[in-house]
Amino acid sequence: MKILYSNQANFKDEFDALVNRSNMDIQGVMPIVNGIIDDIKKHGDEALKEQIAKFDRWEVNNNLAITTDEMKSAYEALDSELKSALEIAYKRVKSYHQKQVEKSWIDFEPSGALLGQKVTPVDRAGLYIPGGKAAYPSSLIMNAVPAIVAGVKDIVVCTPAVGGVVNSLLLGAMHLLGIKEAYKVGGASAIATMAYGTNSIKKVDVITGPGNIYVATAKKMVYGDVNIDMIAGPSEIGVIADDSANPAHIAIDLLSQAEHDEIASSFLITFSDEFATKVNSEIQRLLPNLKRYEIAKASIENKAAIIVARDMNECVELMNELAVEHLEIACDNAYDYLPHIRHAGAIFLGHYTPEAIGDYLAGPNHTLPTGGSARFFSPLSVSNFIKKSSIISMNKCAISELSKACMALADAEGLEAHKLSVEFRI
Amino acid sequence: MKILYSNQANFKDEFDALVNRSNMDIQGVMPIVNGIIDDIKKHGDEALKEQIAKFDRWEVNNNLAITTDEMKSAYEALDSELKSALEIAYKRVKSYHQKQVEKSWIDFEPSGALLGQKVTPVDRAGLYIPGGKAAYPSSLIMNAVPAIVAGVKDIVVCTPAVGGVVNSLLLGAMHLLGIKEAYKVGGASAIATMAYGTNSIKKVDVITGPGNIYVATAKKMVYGDVNIDMIAGPSEIGVIADDSANPAHIAIDLLSQAEHDEIASSFLITFSDEFATKVNSEIQRLLPNLKRYEIAKASIENKAAIIVARDMNECVELMNELAVEHLEIACDNAYDYLPHIRHAGAIFLGHYTPEAIGDYLAGPNHTLPTGGSARFFSPLSVSNFIKKSSIISMNKCAISELSKACMALADAEGLEAHKLSVEFRI
Repeated sequence: MKILYSNQANFKDEFDALVNRSNMDIQGVMPIVNGIIDDIKKHGDEALKEQIAKFDRWEVNNNLAITTDEMKSAYEALDSELKSALEIAYKRVKSYHQKQVEKSWIDFEPSGALLGQKVTPVDRAGLYIPGGKAAYPSSLIMNAVPAIVAGVKDIVVCTPAVGGVVNSLLLGAMHLLGIKEAYKVGGASAIATMAYGTNSIKKVDVITGPGNIYVATAKKMVYGDVNIDMIAGPSEIGVIADDSANPAHIAIDLLSQAEHDEIASSFLITFSDEFATKVNSEIQRLLPNLKRYEIAKASIENKAAIIVARDMNECVELMNELAVEHLEIACDNAYDYLPHIRHAGAIFLGHYTPEAIGDYLAGPNHTLPTGGSARFFSPLSVSNFIKKSSIISMNKCAISELSKACMALADAEGLEAHKLSVEFRI
Repeated sequence: MKILYSNQANFKDEFDALVNRSNMDIQGVMPIVNGIIDDIKKHGDEALKEQIAKFDRWEVNNNLAITTDEMKSAYEALDSELKSALEIAYKRVKSYHQKQVEKSWIDFEPSGALLGQKVTPVDRAGLYIPGGKAAYPSSLIMNAVPAIVAGVKDIVVCTPAVGGVVNSLLLGAMHLLGIKEAYKVGGASAIATMAYGTNSIKKVDVITGPGNIYVATAKKMVYGDVNIDMIAGPSEIGVIADDSANPAHIAIDLLSQAEHDEIASSFLITFSDEFATKVNSEIQRLLPNLKRYEIAKASIENKAAIIVARDMNECVELMNELAVEHLEIACDNAYDYLPHIRHAGAIFLGHYTPEAIGDYLAGPNHTLPTGGSARFFSPLSVSNFIKKSSIISMNKCAISELSKACMALADAEGLEAHKLSVEFRI
C-alpha cells in the first residue's frame, strides 16, 4: 500500500491527485444514456421491454411488477436470525430518521402579518436498488425509511432482475418495509421510466438510490424534471488514527471499503510513522485470506494510500481536503476533533465504531456523498422526500407599512405592475 | 385572455398542456453550453476573456473583479429612499431566514452509544445575478442572505457587465450586503468558472441564482461537481379567487407576473363565471397602459388562462396539479385552504397579499421552483448553503449488543471484511 509523507517535496502533487479522485466519466457514457432516456420517453413500455431484454436478458410478458405476495413469501422463507437482523436495522434506522423530521412553522408580526413555511412530503418517490450478483437489502432500508418517515404516499422500488429473478433477501426486505409497488427494471432504463413514466409505471417526483455510472448519469440527466438525492460514485473511507488505535482494526476497516469495488478508495492519515507501518503490515497479513481478495487487492494497490502527516492538526486539515464519504477518527480523544471536521459524509468516533456498523444498523443513512462531494452534499435523509412552501399573509395595516419600500424597489427594477399591485391595496 | 371551463369536453387536454408547461429546451442548447464549459475547463481565464468579449462585448484587461470601493461609492450615491428600501428588505429577509437555521444535534442511547447530525456551512458559495438592461438588487438580497445566515465564509457574486459596466443599484446592494468578492462574468461562462475555477476565480462548492436557458443548462451540467439550488424556468403565478376578491387587484397581480417575460405564465382559477369575466375585463382595461405593455400582452395572450371550476375543492385540486411558483389564495377564508395546498413555491393568503410583496421584502425567498417543480423543489433557503455529516460513536457495550445483527447482514451481503471489522472489536 502506498505511503506518502506530508513533508516530502512531491507530496502536494500526489495529495492533489487524491483530492481530485472523482473520475466518473459521465460525459463518456452520456450519449448511451441519452439514447436510453429518449427511447423510453418516445416509446414507453415497448422501449422498456426491449432494453430489459438487451441488458438484463429476460423476456418481459406483462410481468414487470413484483407482487406483494412474492415479497411476503420471500420474507417468510428467510432464516430467523436474518429476519431479526433486518428488523433491528429497520427499527434503528427509523428511529434515527424520525429525529430529522421538520415541522411546518408560522410566525406573527406586530402588524398582524403572518410568515411561515409549510412542509409537505412529495406525492411519489422512486427508489433505485441495484441488483445483479449480490443482494443489498441494506440499500432498500436506507432508501425506503426516510421516504416512509417523510410520509410519502407512493413509494416505488425499481431493481434489476437479471434473468427475470429478484434476490429473495431483497424481496423479503420489501415485505418488512411495507413496499406495495415494485418493478423488475434496472439501470438507466429504471431511472428514465421513473422520471417520465410509461403506461405501466407512473412517473415519480423524486428518485434516490445508488448505482453504476449509467445510473449516476441518468440521474444527472433527469435532474430538474424530477429531483434526485445526489450523484454518487465509488465508496470510500478515510481514517484518522494515532498510536492509541489497534492496527488490525484499522486495517480491516480499510479493507472493508476496499472489498466493495476495485475503484473504492481507502485512506489512512496518521502522524505516527510506526503506526502507518503496522497498519500496512496488517493489511498485507489480512488481505490474502479475504473471500473478495481480488477486488480488495486491486482497490488497495491502486486506490488506497497511507499518509503520514506532521501532527494531528495536519491530519484533520488533510482529511477535510479529502472530504471523504466515511470518516473514522480512531483516537482516544476522538470527540476533540469533531468541531474541526468540516467535510465528511459520516463521522465514526472512537475505537469501537467500525464503518460497517453505519452501513447496516447504527441508525444514520448509509447513502452518503462520495468523491469529495461531502463539501456540498448531505447524507440521504427525510429532507430528500419533502419540499417546502413559503407562507405569506399580509393585512391592510401590514401592507401599508411596507408599501413605500416595496414600491420603491419595484420602481427601481422597472416593474410597474408590481408597484401597482401594492398601490391598489392601500 | 383564454377562459377554460372545467365542465367542457376538451378541458382535460387543454389543462394537461398547462400542467406540462415546462418547455425549456435544455437538450437544444446543451452542445453550446458544453462547449463553453469545456473551454473554461481547458483554457481557464483565457477562454473566459474570449467568451466575455464575444457575449458581453467588452475587452477584459485584468479587471474582472469588482472592488469593494466601487460597491461603496455606488451605495453612497443611491437615493436615500431606495437605500432605506434596500435596508428594510435586507433586514426582513434576514429575519425570516434566521428562522430556518438548523442546529447540529446529538442523542444518546442507554448503551452509551451516541448518534447525531452535524451541520456545517459550505466553504464557498457562488451567486449568479443576471444583468443586462435591468438591475435586480432583489435577486442579490434573496441569494446572498441565506448564504450569510448559513455562515458561509466566502460568498462570491458573478454578474454580467454588458460593455464592462455593472448597474450601480446592484453594486450598491453588494455594499449593503457586505459582499467582498464579485466578478464581471455572466451567463454559462460564469457558471462554468464558479464550478471549475480559473487562475483569477477560485472554484466554489454551491452555485445559486436565476438566469436564462443557458445559465439553467450550465447549472444542470455542473451539478454533481458542485451543488446547485434548482433548475428554474420562466416565472409564473396561480391565483385562486372567489367573489370576495377585487377583480382589479387580481388582474394587476396576473399582469405583474406577465410583465416579467413573454413566456411567464399567469393562471386564475375561480368557480365564479361572473368573477372570471370581471377579471378578464380588468386585464383588458389595465394592460394597454402598462410600461411593459408588449411583454405583458404576449404573456397574457399566449401563456395565461382563466379556469372556471365547479367549486372551491376543484379550484384547489387543479391548482395542486399546476404546482405553481407563486400561489395567491384571494378569498375571505384563505386559511381554510392552506392545509389542502400540496404543491406551490410560495403561498400568498388573503386580499392584502399581492405576490410583489414577496418578491421584495415580505421575508421569504423569492427564488422559487417553477414549471411544476414545486412538486419536488423548495424555495431557496439556508439549507442550500449548509450540508450535514452523520455522527456515530459506539463503545464496547454498544457494538457488542449490535454485533450479531450487523454480522448477519454483512454475511448476507457477502461482505466478509465488513463482518470482521465488527468481530475484531468484540
